Amino acid sequence: MSEVLEICKRAREASIELARVSTEIKNKALLAMSDALIAESEAIIEANREDLEEGRRRKISAALMDRLMLNPSRIEEMARDLRNVALLRDPVGEVVKGWRTSNGLLITQVRVPLGVVGMIYEARPNVTVDAAGLCIKTGNAVVLRGSSVALNSNLALTKVISGGVVRVGLPQHSIQSIPDPSRKAANELMRMHEYVDVLIPRGGASLIQTVIQNSTVPVIETGVGNCHVYVDAAADLAMAEKIIENAKCQRPGVCNAAETLLIHRDVVRDFLPRAVHVLTEKGVTIYGCPTTKSLCPEIEEATEEDWHTEYLDLKLAVKVVNSLEEAIAHIQKYGTKHSEAIVTEDYSAAGRFTGEVDAAAVYVNASTRFTDGGQFGLGAEIGISTQKLHARGPMALESLTSTKYVVYGSGQVRE
Amino acid sequence: MSEVLEICKRAREASIELARVSTEIKNKALLAMSDALIAESEAIIEANREDLEEGRRRKISAALMDRLMLNPSRIEEMARDLRNVALLRDPVGEVVKGWRTSNGLLITQVRVPLGVVGMIYEARPNVTVDAAGLCIKTGNAVVLRGSSVALNSNLALTKVISGGVVRVGLPQHSIQSIPDPSRKAANELMRMHEYVDVLIPRGGASLIQTVIQNSTVPVIETGVGNCHVYVDAAADLAMAEKIIENAKCQRPGVCNAAETLLIHRDVVRDFLPRAVHVLTEKGVTIYGCPTTKSLCPEIEEATEEDWHTEYLDLKLAVKVVNSLEEAIAHIQKYGTKHSEAIVTEDYSAAGRFTGEVDAAAVYVNASTRFTDGGQFGLGAEIGISTQKLHARGPMALESLTSTKYVVYGSGQVRE
Repeated sequence: MSEVLEICKRAREASIELARVSTEIKNKALLAMSDALIAESEAIIEANREDLEEGRRRKISAALMDRLMLNPSRIEEMARDLRNVALLRDPVGEVVKGWRTSNGLLITQVRVPLGVVGMIYEARPNVTVDAAGLCIKTGNAVVLRGSSVALNSNLALTKVISGGVVRVGLPQHSIQSIPDPSRKAANELMRMHEYVDVLIPRGGASLIQTVIQNSTVPVIETGVGNCHVYVDAAADLAMAEKIIENAKCQRPGVCNAAETLLIHRDVVRDFLPRAVHVLTEKGVTIYGCPTTKSLCPEIEEATEEDWHTEYLDLKLAVKVVNSLEEAIAHIQKYGTKHSEAIVTEDYSAAGRFTGEVDAAAVYVNASTRFTDGGQFGLGAEIGISTQKLHARGPMALESLTSTKYVVYGSGQVRE
Repeated sequence: MSEVLEICKRAREASIELARVSTEIKNKALLAMSDALIAESEAIIEANREDLEEGRRRKISAALMDRLMLNPSRIEEMARDLRNVALLRDPVGEVVKGWRTSNGLLITQVRVPLGVVGMIYEARPNVTVDAAGLCIKTGNAVVLRGSSVALNSNLALTKVISGGVVRVGLPQHSIQSIPDPSRKAANELMRMHEYVDVLIPRGGASLIQTVIQNSTVPVIETGVGNCHVYVDAAADLAMAEKIIENAKCQRPGVCNAAETLLIHRDVVRDFLPRAVHVLTEKGVTIYGCPTTKSLCPEIEEATEEDWHTEYLDLKLAVKVVNSLEEAIAHIQKYGTKHSEAIVTEDYSAAGRFTGEVDAAAVYVNASTRFTDGGQFGLGAEIGISTQKLHARGPMALESLTSTKYVVYGSGQVRE
């Protein structure tokens, strides 16, 4: 039996036990995981040091080195996040719906764990702890496959938090990381539909496409965000300025940052110069359509490519549109159905935009940067779904559950 | 451009329009589809005759010929079903949840169509009309790929009902059937994740496995049901007799029929002979474990294979278990997570069974045959999901929808 198969089979067994565990014990497990992180932070930092050394040898970028690095305060942050998850309401066991049929059957729809959750991710090592915490809270076993550059860190974290869950009596294989960093192992995980109920990829577009192309396990597509802010003819321009500045600059490297600004032609002369001013002051390079270039010479020429690009950087594409319809059509064509915003004081324009734009989150007069489990008030986030099945938008605890129908009868048979 | 690609692209375009259509117009479309079926039933029966002739040449089974056959009363039935769908509540537009965040954002989660639904099915031609009706009601475009033996019937039905939707002003490509009956065309449809939001396979286990193995479009797994009835030590044996008889015999060829009877050893001497009597009178062949064979000589010996088998026939496997735990473990091992029933008067046994058995529907003191959209009171059914993502159990209108977050602000930006 291959190592990945063995891991997934053990996860399935653990999941059967986990599904029966009370909220109280699951919360104790989260606190034990949190305590273990603090108690064993030296071992974690030691393992992380190996990854950092290897990263230096492989000359990975400074930005990636920073994301990879663990220190006592980052470990404390992970430990605190686990304690916060313990405070959230447990969705498992909720009776979602219930009714009595005409023949007297009582039908109830009850929330249950998914079973085994697979995660494939490129992100910081804290995703290892985050994902494990959310899965434990929802009674799921988790199989983790992080980035190879963080392998030692992830294995150390997994060992430490697994120790925590075992201490309160949960199954040893509730949380497992795949120690084989090869592509072959990742591909094997993608074919484990007999043992894994869902696969959540988190990372760049190419990782996510690889998972979609190769997985027989149901996938939740996450994260790619070519997000737009559309400044309508009836926009409050001071508000629009603040929103585009925030959506582009507050944290440019994330999926809910804006990548294209669309401006209605009626306000472009008033709005464009002030927007360009505030954005260039923040270091943003702007790629614009010919009309914008003619108004602001500091704008560089946009190519077709720019409308498609998720820069994840201090770069912004800008285009003048003739109408609300043209803005919506542009978003339809180039958007990735993540987060889209209109700035307008026009009631009908707001209604048409929110009705017709097909995206996980559509905003009126607010920054796209709010598409986030924490900002939405969900208390957590395991990813942002950009697909339409199962979950759409920020995914928290409920997205890690399924339901089952429990039907109570008194001898009913079908006529 | 290949034909399948063209069909899927046109479906995507149609879906954008359909998402905006009011419930009133969608209901008019359903009535127009219904009227068209009646008005053009001769053309449909003519096309069906070609399929029947071809079926006779290919010597397909009498059962399949019966499923394939259309006559005026079957067409009237389909037309009536469409009128019934028009009467159901439209889930699109429902505000599922909503709340205000601490910074004043109003977050609403609104139900929207999925977009484009793909169906691959082996069933009767009425699925063509059923699926199209449910998709129109929920504002989805649909791409249909039925069985090659029903090709002419399906194309004729599609043409007739498409005429209905066009008559009320809906897009021409709202409902399309793929005219190419080859496997290549089906495989192409499975890779259309850019244009198709979900694929629902309906048919035998091998069709469903093919779709799971090859599809990059998100799939909802349906239908395979190796269902169990467990007669507990504390069962009302008269009730148990009626339930197993109903679960096995009322319609043996469907996925929610029982395939294995598990009996607690404490009641096997009382229960088995009467169960065998009533079942064999109905023509059921019974395959049992050694203990059952020693009690009832008319029972044939079960092999390991029998515990795995979805007979879909008047055949039943029977096994004696020593405990509730053993019954649950057997179901865990051999079940397909479809429908499972316990017959018991014991409160704790009922609680453990419903809690621990992992299936789309778990019954106490009722027949497994109730796992059905109509029986559940959902008013319709497009399939029974046996997977955990998105929808589980009987799927009706709501399963054909997604949600989007519509967020109303007043200039909020992220700190």
